[in-house]
Amino acid sequence: MTYRAPVRDMIDTIRHAAGFDAIQAQGLYGELGADLIEQVLDEAGRFAADRLAPLNRVGDTHGATFADGVVTTAPGWKEAYGAWAAAGWNAVAGPPEWGGQGLPLVVQVACAEMWNSACMAFSLAPLLTSGAIEALSAHATPELKRTYLEKLVAGVWTGTMNLTEPQAGSDLSALRARAVPASDGSYRVTGQKIFITYGEHDMTDNIVHLVLARLPDAPPGTRGISLFLVPKFLVNPDGSLGARNDVRCASIEHKLGVHASPTCVMAFGDEGGAVGYLIGEENRGLACMFTMMNNARLSVGIQGVAIAERAFQQALAYAQERRQGRAGGSADAMSAIVAHPDVQRMLMTMKALTAAARAICYRTAAALDGAHLASDPATRAAAHAHASLLTPVAKAFSTDIGVEVASLGVQIHGGMGFIEETGAAQHLRDARIAPIYEGTNGIQAIDLVARKLPVAGGETVRAAIAAMRVTAARATNARVDGLGTTAARLRDAAESLDRATAYMLKALAGNAPDDALAGAAPYLRLFGLAEGLSAMTASALAAHEAMAAGDTNPAHAGRIALTRFFAENVAPAASGLEQTVLGGAPSVQAAPLVLAG
Amino acid sequence: MTYRAPVRDMIDTIRHAAGFDAIQAQGLYGELGADLIEQVLDEAGRFAADRLAPLNRVGDTHGATFADGVVTTAPGWKEAYGAWAAAGWNAVAGPPEWGGQGLPLVVQVACAEMWNSACMAFSLAPLLTSGAIEALSAHATPELKRTYLEKLVAGVWTGTMNLTEPQAGSDLSALRARAVPASDGSYRVTGQKIFITYGEHDMTDNIVHLVLARLPDAPPGTRGISLFLVPKFLVNPDGSLGARNDVRCASIEHKLGVHASPTCVMAFGDEGGAVGYLIGEENRGLACMFTMMNNARLSVGIQGVAIAERAFQQALAYAQERRQGRAGGSADAMSAIVAHPDVQRMLMTMKALTAAARAICYRTAAALDGAHLASDPATRAAAHAHASLLTPVAKAFSTDIGVEVASLGVQIHGGMGFIEETGAAQHLRDARIAPIYEGTNGIQAIDLVARKLPVAGGETVRAAIAAMRVTAARATNARVDGLGTTAARLRDAAESLDRATAYMLKALAGNAPDDALAGAAPYLRLFGLAEGLSAMTASALAAHEAMAAGDTNPAHAGRIALTRFFAENVAPAASGLEQTVLGGAPSVQAAPLVLAG
Repeated sequence: MTYRAPVRDMIDTIRHAAGFDAIQAQGLYGELGADLIEQVLDEAGRFAADRLAPLNRVGDTHGATFADGVVTTAPGWKEAYGAWAAAGWNAVAGPPEWGGQGLPLVVQVACAEMWNSACMAFSLAPLLTSGAIEALSAHATPELKRTYLEKLVAGVWTGTMNLTEPQAGSDLSALRARAVPASDGSYRVTGQKIFITYGEHDMTDNIVHLVLARLPDAPPGTRGISLFLVPKFLVNPDGSLGARNDVRCASIEHKLGVHASPTCVMAFGDEGGAVGYLIGEENRGLACMFTMMNNARLSVGIQGVAIAERAFQQALAYAQERRQGRAGGSADAMSAIVAHPDVQRMLMTMKALTAAARAICYRTAAALDGAHLASDPATRAAAHAHASLLTPVAKAFSTDIGVEVASLGVQIHGGMGFIEETGAAQHLRDARIAPIYEGTNGIQAIDLVARKLPVAGGETVRAAIAAMRVTAARATNARVDGLGTTAARLRDAAESLDRATAYMLKALAGNAPDDALAGAAPYLRLFGLAEGLSAMTASALAAHEAMAAGDTNPAHAGRIALTRFFAENVAPAASGLEQTVLGGAPSVQAAPLVLAG
Repeated sequence: MTYRAPVRDMIDTIRHAAGFDAIQAQGLYGELGADLIEQVLDEAGRFAADRLAPLNRVGDTHGATFADGVVTTAPGWKEAYGAWAAAGWNAVAGPPEWGGQGLPLVVQVACAEMWNSACMAFSLAPLLTSGAIEALSAHATPELKRTYLEKLVAGVWTGTMNLTEPQAGSDLSALRARAVPASDGSYRVTGQKIFITYGEHDMTDNIVHLVLARLPDAPPGTRGISLFLVPKFLVNPDGSLGARNDVRCASIEHKLGVHASPTCVMAFGDEGGAVGYLIGEENRGLACMFTMMNNARLSVGIQGVAIAERAFQQALAYAQERRQGRAGGSADAMSAIVAHPDVQRMLMTMKALTAAARAICYRTAAALDGAHLASDPATRAAAHAHASLLTPVAKAFSTDIGVEVASLGVQIHGGMGFIEETGAAQHLRDARIAPIYEGTNGIQAIDLVARKLPVAGGETVRAAIAAMRVTAARATNARVDGLGTTAARLRDAAESLDRATAYMLKALAGNAPDDALAGAAPYLRLFGLAEGLSAMTASALAAHEAMAAGDTNPAHAGRIALTRFFAENVAPAASGLEQTVLGGAPSVQAAPLVLAG
């Protein structure tokens, strides 16, 4: 049940799979080097292991509780949150002008992985706060920034995202919450929101709700939605807390997992209207919300990585302890089950999928860093387009494998995996939300195919595939024994992705969007396999170079062996996925024949 | 949350996918025709829907409770069990000499699917009883049969399987429970057993435990294990209940799912020794236990099918109700989400995987019927070998897809899927045990590859692959428009399976068992895809023939479309699985390099 932060894997992923070394060589990260990153991650890892990991089980069994509008978090949570924020962990990537440390996103996501591995339910609070910080930084008036940003960056207050209503989930055009202008320039917000993560809790004095609502004269659909800041307590000019605002938690949900994270039904304006402040322009709320949603999607992808890592560590520890049967040439004594080929396959699959998802997420973060930091506008634009392309893959691939890896973790525990006290089942229950929220993985696949692929005539995706080919060629030339047929498998996956991409672009251009949408989910999976293998191969080649330079750390050989496993045991699925994308649509479209019966 | 038994799908699967019509043509099923089967299934379906399905949620929320050695089932369970047994449902396939109806297994598994779809936790009690009936029928003395079988067949008493001990799970050689001969010819059994399903409950007056234990002079390992019948209450010569035996439930587990099925720690002989009666010969207990374990494995496979069917029905109903977004050419109004291509893909995947698993399980049951009923010994032997080959596939493939389908069901519900009141999450929680118990799916894969493939030099598996080729050729010749490229995909899958099989047999013969074991799990999945597609194609061809003969039932076109979906969207995974089997072993064997770090 303990957690040890995989700092070495993280550093390696940042440097070689995400491309930090290459970006740093361009001077974009300034003085920041791998040594400083390692110090930060080491310290974060200690906090995660010592203070947050012990919250995980009590949070699950105790959960958040609700009575009379008040939400009480599980025992120890308020104290842990206070200590975590006081240590500065909420401010890692925050803007320096509001007290943040301004570290790049690629460091922030590694820290976020640790918080989520240690305790996913806890980490949802800062995940939402960080989205609120971004939206305010990008779109709020100077006055709102002055009033709210410092407290949010420090984690003294938390933020929320209020989008969903019962009739408006994936489809926000159906939103009904209303906002009416008041004489003082503020607004009065009314309506009900559901599935609001940490919409109410006792860990901080104030909560800053970002709320989507419609103005009285707003056009229908998504072009009539505005974004408002609605604080739980109004804030006086001196920064102290004023009156309670007209927003209340009506109830919390009874969920499969993340029990300790309160999922709230929020009632705005039951007593006449909650005081709200417009963020950005009227009727442009969705664009503002997307500012926070894109990074939130990456953060949810990180949750998939995080829960996979935690599940892997627990399963490995069990497999090293538990003795059953006799493996290979073993004599009379029972073997640890880690020695059995089928258990090795499961553990290697867990670790390989986790590594691939981590590489994709960190790479997305590095691209976002490039989009912010590069001095050349064209470089910034290319990095932004690359990050936009990768974001749905980072979210959906990582959260899908989060569930798969957690399920393998249950399996490795055998009967004990089904017993709640073991803890393996909790990881599966917790992991199961991530493919759903922040845009279901189906929505991510549609976003990837219908919005991201056609950008600039497909130039961005073609550049990504070209980079995979370059990595495959490097692997071919390097002739690393331990990589087996990795170069060939990467080339196969890239070619499958190339053909599937051409099919998608043609279907979209040829006015057959349903042919593209029918294969969007397998296309995204194919993209994840190819991108993940490419990033892992880059990392394995760096390990090979280090070994050739005399570095005897055994982790290098391990990284090469893991990459080969992914190439030869996971990535072969690429050809079947390609076939499904290219040939599967007609039978998807026959669904009414089957489902009507 | 309601359940409607898919009787038409079941009948069709029995007749065309499992091969009932062909077997019946040989006269093996006597007077039993499809009409009678349909009557039985209709009636079973009504009982399942009306009486058992309502137990599912109360069982989950209330669970079984334990106090002072007494287990109390959830409200309504005792009454429902009594009504179910009184209606004769426990006796469907039971031996007629002990009051059973003696219907073939292929009918029994269809009924069992319904009980499990309606309420999996409930259905575990009869699942275990039926194993006990088989073991006693095959191995018990006439006196034990007379005393116990009638009550077990009627369901007046239930049975249990007591195998697992803390140190002996997958590896039964480590068993420690002991049995000492008493002067009256009975034995005194002592020891602790864990994970005993329905080891204690209040639904019947008596419980018949089958217990594995060692005699004092038994050889070590699996050759020193004997099987004993240990009743909860001793039975007087007149059949009335006598003294309480020295066996007690010490506690029950807190589990991820099937909350209402008590999973017991059983203590035998705390007060000196539980009275037990030897079943079969001394030290041959494992062979006797395997008699019941093989059918129990098929029954657990059926659980995978059952939970998948229930999850599919619930997801489909939600997708037809829930409106979000605008699909295809839809105008302003929101579309039911069932019209969105990605949701269609998920629903079709759920239904196709369920249909494939059902076909494999029913086909296994039909083979077992053939093994019992055929007059010709060679035919019996071939059917037995075929059933033995299919059993691990039926268990592991079906329970794996049970989890996958239930997880897709959660996904289709979006945020509501994560809320426990919706019920979708319960299916996932319940489904998750099936890949674990009755031999983990890893054990099934090893059984398939290491034990079942080499039988008769691979003759049985080659016959199975030859049958797939025949079906593919029939599909090619039939030129059914609606089947698209189904014939080619089936041929591809069969060829992949053929090459993977050759690899396995060579590795086993060449004394490289670890090369075979490393790929056992993907091999089993490949087998399931090929066998499932072959069975579905047989069913689709029958549908085509019916349509050609003028039958206008739209279900025929639906079956053809579903088969095509499986062929073009699910079965393409076969090539990647083949590649993994053929090339994946070296990198699995590098696991110590990766996992040590």
